[in-house]
Amino acid sequence: MSHNTFGHLFRVTTFGESHGVAIGCVVDGCPPLIPLTEADIQRDLDRRRPGQSRFTTQRQEPDTVKILSGVMAHPESGVQVTTGTPIALLIENTDQRSKDYSDIREKFRPGHAKYGLRDYRGGGRSSARETAMRVAAGAIARKILPEVTVRGALVQMGPHRIDRAKWDWNEIGKNPFFCPDKDKAAFFEEYLDGIRKEGSSIGAVIEITAEGVPAGLGAPIYAKLDADIAAAFMSINAVKGVEIGAGFGAAELSGEENADEMRMGNQGAKFLSNHAGGILGGISTGQPVVARFAVKPTSSILTPRRTVDRKGGETEILTKGRHDPCVGIRAVPVGEAMMACVLADHFLRHRGQVGR
Amino acid sequence: MSHNTFGHLFRVTTFGESHGVAIGCVVDGCPPLIPLTEADIQRDLDRRRPGQSRFTTQRQEPDTVKILSGVMAHPESGVQVTTGTPIALLIENTDQRSKDYSDIREKFRPGHAKYGLRDYRGGGRSSARETAMRVAAGAIARKILPEVTVRGALVQMGPHRIDRAKWDWNEIGKNPFFCPDKDKAAFFEEYLDGIRKEGSSIGAVIEITAEGVPAGLGAPIYAKLDADIAAAFMSINAVKGVEIGAGFGAAELSGEENADEMRMGNQGAKFLSNHAGGILGGISTGQPVVARFAVKPTSSILTPRRTVDRKGGETEILTKGRHDPCVGIRAVPVGEAMMACVLADHFLRHRGQVGR
Amino acid sequence: MSHNTFGHLFRVTTFGESHGVAIGCVVDGCPPLIPLTEADIQRDLDRRRPGQSRFTTQRQEPDTVKILSGVMAHPESGVQVTTGTPIALLIENTDQRSKDYSDIREKFRPGHAKYGLRDYRGGGRSSARETAMRVAAGAIARKILPEVTVRGALVQMGPHRIDRAKWDWNEIGKNPFFCPDKDKAAFFEEYLDGIRKEGSSIGAVIEITAEGVPAGLGAPIYAKLDADIAAAFMSINAVKGVEIGAGFGAAELSGEENADEMRMGNQGAKFLSNHAGGILGGISTGQPVVARFAVKPTSSILTPRRTVDRKGGETEILTKGRHDPCVGIRAVPVGEAMMACVLADHFLRHRGQVGR
Amino acid sequence: MSHNTFGHLFRVTTFGESHGVAIGCVVDGCPPLIPLTEADIQRDLDRRRPGQSRFTTQRQEPDTVKILSGVMAHPESGVQVTTGTPIALLIENTDQRSKDYSDIREKFRPGHAKYGLRDYRGGGRSSARETAMRVAAGAIARKILPEVTVRGALVQMGPHRIDRAKWDWNEIGKNPFFCPDKDKAAFFEEYLDGIRKEGSSIGAVIEITAEGVPAGLGAPIYAKLDADIAAAFMSINAVKGVEIGAGFGAAELSGEENADEMRMGNQGAKFLSNHAGGILGGISTGQPVVARFAVKPTSSILTPRRTVDRKGGETEILTKGRHDPCVGIRAVPVGEAMMACVLADHFLRHRGQVGR
Repeated sequence: MSHNTFGHLFRVTTFGESHGVAIGCVVDGCPPLIPLTEADIQRDLDRRRPGQSRFTTQRQEPDTVKILSGVMAHPESGVQVTTGTPIALLIENTDQRSKDYSDIREKFRPGHAKYGLRDYRGGGRSSARETAMRVAAGAIARKILPEVTVRGALVQMGPHRIDRAKWDWNEIGKNPFFCPDKDKAAFFEEYLDGIRKEGSSIGAVIEITAEGVPAGLGAPIYAKLDADIAAAFMSINAVKGVEIGAGFGAAELSGEENADEMRMGNQGAKFLSNHAGGILGGISTGQPVVARFAVKPTSSILTPRRTVDRKGGETEILTKGRHDPCVGIRAVPVGEAMMACVLADHFLRHRGQVGR
Repeated sequence: MSHNTFGHLFRVTTFGESHGVAIGCVVDGCPPLIPLTEADIQRDLDRRRPGQSRFTTQRQEPDTVKILSGVMAHPESGVQVTTGTPIALLIENTDQRSKDYSDIREKFRPGHAKYGLRDYRGGGRSSARETAMRVAAGAIARKILPEVTVRGALVQMGPHRIDRAKWDWNEIGKNPFFCPDKDKAAFFEEYLDGIRKEGSSIGAVIEITAEGVPAGLGAPIYAKLDADIAAAFMSINAVKGVEIGAGFGAAELSGEENADEMRMGNQGAKFLSNHAGGILGGISTGQPVVARFAVKPTSSILTPRRTVDRKGGETEILTKGRHDPCVGIRAVPVGEAMMACVLADHFLRHRGQVGR
Repeated sequence: MSHNTFGHLFRVTTFGESHGVAIGCVVDGCPPLIPLTEADIQRDLDRRRPGQSRFTTQRQEPDTVKILSGVMAHPESGVQVTTGTPIALLIENTDQRSKDYSDIREKFRPGHAKYGLRDYRGGGRSSARETAMRVAAGAIARKILPEVTVRGALVQMGPHRIDRAKWDWNEIGKNPFFCPDKDKAAFFEEYLDGIRKEGSSIGAVIEITAEGVPAGLGAPIYAKLDADIAAAFMSINAVKGVEIGAGFGAAELSGEENADEMRMGNQGAKFLSNHAGGILGGISTGQPVVARFAVKPTSSILTPRRTVDRKGGETEILTKGRHDPCVGIRAVPVGEAMMACVLADHFLRHRGQVGR
Repeated sequence: MSHNTFGHLFRVTTFGESHGVAIGCVVDGCPPLIPLTEADIQRDLDRRRPGQSRFTTQRQEPDTVKILSGVMAHPESGVQVTTGTPIALLIENTDQRSKDYSDIREKFRPGHAKYGLRDYRGGGRSSARETAMRVAAGAIARKILPEVTVRGALVQMGPHRIDRAKWDWNEIGKNPFFCPDKDKAAFFEEYLDGIRKEGSSIGAVIEITAEGVPAGLGAPIYAKLDADIAAAFMSINAVKGVEIGAGFGAAELSGEENADEMRMGNQGAKFLSNHAGGILGGISTGQPVVARFAVKPTSSILTPRRTVDRKGGETEILTKGRHDPCVGIRAVPVGEAMMACVLADHFLRHRGQVGR
């Protein structure tokens, strides 16, 4: 059943609540002899960490990861490597201002699962904080597939889409939005400031690409590569939609328009377009895998919303805690991590069945 | 690993190629004592069957299902019921005109996984025919949840969307498109005829709703109800996008707009809108579950497309076989079935952990 | 959950009741391009088939297997090979004399699960007949590991053990008991005739060995090779005990006696004994894997046993159907098949994680 | 694949090496609202802890468990309860005298998996220390089934079996062997002292019983209750054999002897014997579940054994570390824990499928 496990041969099990003593995960099935240090993981965690600009929650989470098991110094080289046993990772929680939420305990908070259901199972578990462990697991997954480059970008905020003609991967690290369009990033700065000052929030669309994925990963029916990517992205906090390649746009296309034609190039057969997003019939084609997901605006806003309390009384709710005006921003490294985990899992599964 | 199994407690394993002797599935984990006959399953299969109008492939597939195991006459009532053991279903293939495809064997067919990869694993397995077994499994899943109504509709064909104000579920069965908007259905008749006569194809968007889903199904992290729906839909042939509730539209909304506010109604607290699509934080809210998926146009078209052959020569390809101008139409009952399977699986898993 | 699936990467799902229309299985995860015909599977099935001597039930089960999916003629060689898609196998039931059991329907039959519990889930499912599908799956598993030789032998019947000094694998096929000790086989002929004529039954111990298993299969904690063998054997009808290597005898040994010492031989390091049964710490050592299982006597006997009926009345029960005086005999090919399936699964899993 | 996960709905994933910084586990799938404190778990851990008598290793392991997640104070009662989210448990390692093993690094140690294979995957993972986490998980499993009593006893040490007529559960806690036969316990004290002083070791047989198990748990084919118990026990360090009820003894019985006859008692139908060990056809009968496992003697002994080194030279090996003369003793609480975990998992799975 594994309500908290993801993957088949590369398996990630996360645990921990945002307001508890620690969060962590166990990564099982990692191949042995892969060099791995805490710094390798920390690098990715730091990209996700909040409080790095005025556009993400000011909650301070140092997010210092510890490796509890699954690595050892190689007896000959001395380099720390994986042993093939489960890799347990732990991040202690240091900033637990849970009182911020105390006044909304009795009310159903619109758009917020755990209070809406008052289900003990959801207590803090659906928090964005859990995604830190996904990023950590993704850092390990990346090391299993060094030839694959997984990168993410924010391509839409509210109704504003980037100009794809201006896409420059180098811009991603230069603005607080992971935005590849320099001009749109400048616009977002002002736009999001307005939203932040109003105590409002806004949605976004994130695009994740994986270059260097070998052809042949996936399976034609239930273990489709795209089905696993869809589940992986949809399992990220606040995601409401997932698409591959042309995605929902494919619904508007004719067969002639949608076909990715082929010609011979310098390095053999090549596709002239990539409406398929690198996946046909559930199996990677060798083209870049391209997928997007839509992130809804957070429900934690300052404007009161109508709700009811536990006793059936009509009331209003507003959230005074520290929140992100656009949670989609911090979802970029999380989406990258999920893509890396899916690809690593499929790589190992494929190698198991087919032997290469 | 289970490359061909779907679900955890309600498990569906399909087998068979479109051009082989038979297709089938094994449904494992079905509760005992549920009345089940071949007619129950055939009813749903007949809705998916091709050749019922000029808008679906003229391939004749009687699709007569046989139950091979897992049922018996109840010793007291005599009614045929499930026993709790695996239910094996078989449909023999009767129409195997595989020669239609023989001239494209050596060419990479744009947009078609199995030839594009020439991977023996894909041989016929990614065919739309496999979806018959999903519909069959879905018929069983529906019987596990008699209080839940799962219905589907085609809401967009090419760039043409239905008028939601005209939505009438009664129209679904009155046109060959599963279209709930009578006027748009009339338009689609002419529109798709044009596409069909050109030997072209077109994409579509399908919406599936489930009413009567109890609150509380799902889990907050990896076994999210929406994540499983996303995987289920994305695993359907030709699907390129999935969304829940407001979906990609949520990216354009502010937190104020996206919030599903609550007031007291005659039957207790009720939501004033359903942008969440009935799922918050991975868990059902009690509102109708609403999800959509985008189906790309089939790559089997009469207009030649550029491709390369196995020896690296540049050539063209066109498909003379019998194909659907809009494969999205027949995806409607398939989407319903996948939704029913996901809900049945989550219902059983929830009952296992929580006891009700 | 998969109540009826066995294995992780090499997955076997069986279905069908002994008195239904057919039994079958789906073997998922088989590597592609492995030559496979129905004759390959039939050969192993024929070794298990009842009615071949007066010592097994006279129920006639031709057990003719059909491959429904997962194979195709190789486009170049023409040889029928696996495609990597699920291989569905079907055996139609032809001899359904279920009336033999009709008079015991109302009574709890001592030692017989399905009537004892009157659980609809057990209806015919726990029959020895299901083991035919295990043998069929095992035949496929053997082809994945052609360098491994899996053989089984009956080493004890009732209190009578074979003389291990007389072990000759060539004898296995020359007597109806799969007994490697020629003299003991002659004794068993007379001994079992006596039991058969009394309408009684007797238990047995079966030993399965696998030679050529590469070192390194298995994992140190929950996916131990021996743990999976134990589950596989214990899942065979009527098995009550499983042991590896020295097994229960190891409880009587000192550390000095139990140690498998090593010396250098012509082909490198070799063990001087095999108390470990080829498995240490859950991982294969390269020595032959040796495991045994105990089969209880069938509860279907002619001497009345005391029981109670469904209404609470005290009564007696006896079985007039056709049964085996020693069901352990026919368990030999089943045990071989389960060993082969476990090894194939571990081979694929190991290859997935470690890459060779 | 889950090389380090056990169970389906009640899932235990362990991590950590004996010589690392910590060991731990994640228990996923536990029902919500079950009272659970660290003391509940510590109680069971203390029974397993070494160094409590001269008969177990003098390694000091305080084994203080911390609950990292999955519990909260109930908002009304204040009692700490499970939330249904994953329960992570951690035990920090304090006593890491790894240098004791340094001189045997280059040699194959007979009977010891990790050095025998020099497989990095096994590095410390197959240690008895991992079993602490099984005991911890078992403590949680017990709370899911409060009506079931799981108890274990040492019933054989070397060739010496207890006298079953003298079985007294009250004796279990009064001697350092978990031995229910007072006289034999006195004998074992002297017997094991002799073995300890020689630096030798000896095997044992452990019996685990579960009373109060409801009839109907398990499934007739691959999810047999006994098959899961067999795998659970065989996955314990140093176990070489598993049996249910009459076990290997059943091989010597006739059908008449093996039948568990039934008569009417004060509380309805009852069995007159329990050769089945409470499980028929894979399904619990309502009788006590009785299972045994054989533990081999540890290979860590003072008498040199012949082995070869990594360069192929013939040499000898002996172990100077601190070891248990009879590792079977400490396996008693581990066996209890594994039985509890299997029963909890089957209880939840049964409830999922059947609804009660």
